[in-house]
Amino acid sequence: MSEYTKQITRLISEVRSKKPLIHNITNYVTVNDCANVTLAIGASPIMADDIDEAADITSISSALVINIGTLNKRTIESMILSGKKANEKGIPVIFDPVGAGASALRNETTSTILDKIKISVLRGNLSEISYIAGRNASTKGVDASEADIQSNDSIAVAKAAAVKLGCVVAVTGAVDVISDGKNVVTVLNGHKMLSNVTGTGCMTTALVGSFCGAVKDYFKAAVAGVTVMGISGEIAYEAAGHKGTGSYHIAIIDAISRMDENIFGEKARINEI
Amino acid sequence: MSEYTKQITRLISEVRSKKPLIHNITNYVTVNDCANVTLAIGASPIMADDIDEAADITSISSALVINIGTLNKRTIESMILSGKKANEKGIPVIFDPVGAGASALRNETTSTILDKIKISVLRGNLSEISYIAGRNASTKGVDASEADIQSNDSIAVAKAAAVKLGCVVAVTGAVDVISDGKNVVTVLNGHKMLSNVTGTGCMTTALVGSFCGAVKDYFKAAVAGVTVMGISGEIAYEAAGHKGTGSYHIAIIDAISRMDENIFGEKARINEI
Amino acid sequence: MSEYTKQITRLISEVRSKKPLIHNITNYVTVNDCANVTLAIGASPIMADDIDEAADITSISSALVINIGTLNKRTIESMILSGKKANEKGIPVIFDPVGAGASALRNETTSTILDKIKISVLRGNLSEISYIAGRNASTKGVDASEADIQSNDSIAVAKAAAVKLGCVVAVTGAVDVISDGKNVVTVLNGHKMLSNVTGTGCMTTALVGSFCGAVKDYFKAAVAGVTVMGISGEIAYEAAGHKGTGSYHIAIIDAISRMDENIFGEKARINEI
Repeated sequence: MSEYTKQITRLISEVRSKKPLIHNITNYVTVNDCANVTLAIGASPIMADDIDEAADITSISSALVINIGTLNKRTIESMILSGKKANEKGIPVIFDPVGAGASALRNETTSTILDKIKISVLRGNLSEISYIAGRNASTKGVDASEADIQSNDSIAVAKAAAVKLGCVVAVTGAVDVISDGKNVVTVLNGHKMLSNVTGTGCMTTALVGSFCGAVKDYFKAAVAGVTVMGISGEIAYEAAGHKGTGSYHIAIIDAISRMDENIFGEKARINEI
Repeated sequence: MSEYTKQITRLISEVRSKKPLIHNITNYVTVNDCANVTLAIGASPIMADDIDEAADITSISSALVINIGTLNKRTIESMILSGKKANEKGIPVIFDPVGAGASALRNETTSTILDKIKISVLRGNLSEISYIAGRNASTKGVDASEADIQSNDSIAVAKAAAVKLGCVVAVTGAVDVISDGKNVVTVLNGHKMLSNVTGTGCMTTALVGSFCGAVKDYFKAAVAGVTVMGISGEIAYEAAGHKGTGSYHIAIIDAISRMDENIFGEKARINEI
Repeated sequence: MSEYTKQITRLISEVRSKKPLIHNITNYVTVNDCANVTLAIGASPIMADDIDEAADITSISSALVINIGTLNKRTIESMILSGKKANEKGIPVIFDPVGAGASALRNETTSTILDKIKISVLRGNLSEISYIAGRNASTKGVDASEADIQSNDSIAVAKAAAVKLGCVVAVTGAVDVISDGKNVVTVLNGHKMLSNVTGTGCMTTALVGSFCGAVKDYFKAAVAGVTVMGISGEIAYEAAGHKGTGSYHIAIIDAISRMDENIFGEKARINEI
């Protein structure tokens, strides 16, 4: 195991021992899974999206996760207010621009969030991050498109977005790429069946948020979160892939809940480029 | 296997090869299951209900599913706007009038939707469709009532509603009935344990929407969606019925994800009346 | 088995035979689980939170469950209106003050609900109920805190809150305590893994609501609901605890759906103090 992988591996115990409180303003499609994976990796989730409490909840949390999967006027305002509060207090903000590129509202909201809030980690699929990086991309729904299989594209897009925004960017797909604009790490873990369950992207973002709540190095936190999901996707496939996507979905959460340094260290396929 | 059943069977491959994008404006109780069954049958779900993007999302989709399970003023407006956009662009609209008959708001919203939007397929249980057809029905909650066991009633109600609305109507229950007002098909698949899991009706509607996004014959699409759920309810019972309703719920999604022409052709019990 | 435990045991059959309709105004994180546990214990759930139908739906229901897990201005109004309607018609109101103590909005909403609505059963964890009882408590997220292991505290807090509010109070944790201010019952069932799944508190409240819809003695209904969750947490641990929290989650619902008087009577550890 490389020294770098060893460092990431140790973060598993760190999040489990610190049990950070993670504030999620997220969509109503995958919110239950986001809460359950946050618990499964050892953090504590709190979901709150009313403007009258969003900033209060952010203030007592160790990280804020913003996900625009089912954005609406009411929650967009809360996202902005919570994001500003997080910036003010030095709390990391993790942003999942679900469906960026698919509607004017998603595009405008993404711009507003990126303009008004300093993001620590941006996590999306290739088409979403390409849209943000200002490159061509076609969004087909909110799930991974075929284009995701091209890791060269992902590296270029992740770097471009990271330079543009000055934050860590994670582009997930067949190969996951994490970059801060200068350094690039790829993660080869994962399974294509992950795209047959809704919200595995959102869950990855929730995991990244959980690590960011426990670890000050947000680049490593992003690598850890992305790798936990990839490994869990592999373990779940072995355990339940033959049964179907319902059992696979449950087995993903099982695997996250049982993740420890031994399993992580043995299975992680993390490369510094 | 009858020629008709063969035609329906072939639709399984059609939805899987076309992977249509399906826009769902639905309730927050069963939305995760609706997204996952849409993926499980091979389509791609997108959930979006804000008035500022609803019509945009409909425009890029192959079908629109409207479900009033947890309707509210904000989403009702989006339903109407998306429905009109779908009509304008020739995109099929599938409507699930959850709880019609149970409150004035549900009744008025149902009327408004039926007045302002041309529906391709209406899917509900006997009490909901009876309400729409203008017949007596008592709604007890949003799950199937005892009355559903009477297939003669279902046939009469489905035909009456189809004539009244000029669309395909699916009344699901112990015996499922699909009618366009003239033709009637019954589906004998299903299992009574389906009524012990919330949202199996919503999921059926999501499946019908998935087929409508891939197949121009909405009558056959409705028969396919209803039959997939019925067969999956049977397979799930064999696999997990003895474990309890949690495992049964997961096994339904498993069965949908593994549905293919062989399984469908072997188990479908579809009758042209 | 004590005479008291026998009386509680008989309630399992009572809720299953009466199938009461339970109106839930709840959060979007755990709403699917709340609906499914309501079905699993034999009641019928209906979720409706728009101000234009909330009171109508309450009127046709046998109990109203209010849960502020993801409260917002729109749903708070519906909670108040439905609560008043329930009081007017003699329908029991079960209140879950999720996260009371964690934000000004939750605190104010909790006060408003307790001021304007006569509650039949209040169900929360030690920090939430301590906040309501006016005692010191620190809320860390919405899940159980370490303090919950102190049953002496729970007894004092449950009694104090019950006296203050004049209702039945259930404080759940390692030891569950139910009190009406005078009488105290403890339930020793449960498993610590329950705190690794989001919403097991909400589900407990939904179970209490289901029993309150079928049984006029709300104290016993609360004991029954709390005990069903505790026993199910134990059975689920035996069945699936080793697999992880995803499978454990599903196994909880399985166990509730298979609960009968034999299992309940054999496993219940209910003590009158």
